[in-house]
Amino acid sequence: MKLFKNNLYKRENTIINDKSYNPEEFVEKINNLEYRYHIHHPFDKYLMDGKATKEIIQSWVCNRYYYQATIPQKDSAILSNCNNRDIRQKWILNILNHDNVDEGLDSWIDLGISMGLTREEILDFRHVLPGVKFACDAYYNFAKNSDYKIAIASCLTVNFASNIHKERINNWPKHYEWLDEKSYKYFRERISKAKHEKDVALAYVIEWFKTPEEQANVIDIIKFKQDILWSILDNLYLYHFSEIIFH
Amino acid sequence: MKLFKNNLYKRENTIINDKSYNPEEFVEKINNLEYRYHIHHPFDKYLMDGKATKEIIQSWVCNRYYYQATIPQKDSAILSNCNNRDIRQKWILNILNHDNVDEGLDSWIDLGISMGLTREEILDFRHVLPGVKFACDAYYNFAKNSDYKIAIASCLTVNFASNIHKERINNWPKHYEWLDEKSYKYFRERISKAKHEKDVALAYVIEWFKTPEEQANVIDIIKFKQDILWSILDNLYLYHFSEIIFH
Repeated sequence: MKLFKNNLYKRENTIINDKSYNPEEFVEKINNLEYRYHIHHPFDKYLMDGKATKEIIQSWVCNRYYYQATIPQKDSAILSNCNNRDIRQKWILNILNHDNVDEGLDSWIDLGISMGLTREEILDFRHVLPGVKFACDAYYNFAKNSDYKIAIASCLTVNFASNIHKERINNWPKHYEWLDEKSYKYFRERISKAKHEKDVALAYVIEWFKTPEEQANVIDIIKFKQDILWSILDNLYLYHFSEIIFH
Repeated sequence: MKLFKNNLYKRENTIINDKSYNPEEFVEKINNLEYRYHIHHPFDKYLMDGKATKEIIQSWVCNRYYYQATIPQKDSAILSNCNNRDIRQKWILNILNHDNVDEGLDSWIDLGISMGLTREEILDFRHVLPGVKFACDAYYNFAKNSDYKIAIASCLTVNFASNIHKERINNWPKHYEWLDEKSYKYFRERISKAKHEKDVALAYVIEWFKTPEEQANVIDIIKFKQDILWSILDNLYLYHFSEIIFH
C-alpha cells in the first residue's frame, strides 16, 4: 500500500516544455493525469470491490453530497467572474445540471434515500467530516478568487468522470444487492453530462492556454483539483480505518 | 485506537443553555474544549513519545510552517475587517509576534534548519500536503469572510497553546538528542506570547458574546478551529502511516 506516496503525494513539478504542445499533445498530457484520479484511491477501490458495509457507503454518500452541493456554487462563482456572455450562456448548463429538479443534487439525494438515509441528514451535513469541508471549500474559494479561465481549467477532472460512473454501474450491483436499480440514476445521468461538460471545458482550455508556461499551469491546476477529490477520500479512509493504526 | 471517532469526529451539537453563562462559567465551557485540542491527536502523541524519525519530524515542521505562515495573513484579514482603532492597536501585536525579525516565523524556520532542512525547502512549501493547505486556507478564508469579532473568537485555541509548547520543551529533549538547545526557541517564546494573546482574545469574547445563542456559537467556532489543527495532523498521520492499512 504505497499508493499514497507514489501517487498523489509525489510532489513532482510539472515540467514546462520547451515549445507549446499542439492541441492533440496537450489533450494527451491532460489525459495522462488519469493516474492521479481518485478512482485509484484505496477508499474508492474498497467501495468498487464490494468490501464496504452499508454504513460506510452511507457515510461516503453524505460526505460526497457536500462536494455535490459545492459544485453549482462553484459554477455560479465562475459565472459571476465571467464578463463574456457567450461563455456564460454555455457554462450555465453546469449549474442547471446539478440544480434542475429531479437531476443532479436530487438524484444524489435519491441515492442516499434509497440506501436508508433521511433527506434531512443528507441536507444538514451532520455526517460531513471537517477535512471534507476544507477540501470542497478550497475548490469553491479557488473558483471564486481566480480568473474564470483558470477556474474553468480546474473543472477538467470531469475528463475522467464518465469512467468512474461506468465502473460503479458495472461493479456495484454485483456486490451491493440491497441497492435497487433506481439508485444508479445519478451515475447514469452523469455519463453523458460529464462528456458534454468535458467537451466544452476542453475546447476552451485548448483555445485559451497556448504557451508552454500556460499549459504547464493548466496541468498544475488539474492536479490541484485532483488533490481535492483525493482528499475527500483520504478523510473517509482515515475516519473509517484509523483505528487499525497504532493498535 | 478509537480516539478519532470519540474525539474530534463525535458530531456532538453544542447545546444552547437556557440562560447566559456568567464570565467564569463561559471561560470554563471554553476550557472544557481542551479534550478536542490536537495535543490529543495520535500524531502529536507519537512525536511527544519520542517515536518519530528525524524524517517524520522534518515533515511535521514543513507542514506546520504552512500553518505558521497563514497566521499573520489571517490576523491581517481580521485587522482589515475591523473598524475599531483601539482593537486594531491591540490586535496588530498578533501579526508582529509572527512577522518580527528573529521571532515567530524566523524562530520556526530556525527550528527546521536546526534539524537539517534548508531554508528554501521550508519556504517554498514543497513538502506541504494538499490537505494541510486546505485546512489552513479554510482558517484564513473564515477570518477573511467573517465579522472580526467572530474571527477573533476562532483564535481561542490559543487558550490551549502554552501547554503543548511546555510539553514539547519537557519531553522532546529526552527523546530527540540530535535537536540542540536553540531549536526550542519558538516553543519557549510562544509560552508567554500565547498567554498574552489568550488574555486579550478572551476578554473581548467575554465582552462581546453574552446571549446563550452567541455563547454556543463561540463554542462551535472554537471547535471549527480545533478541527483545522486536528486535520493538519490527520494528513500527516495518513501520509506517514497509510501503508500499514490494507497491507
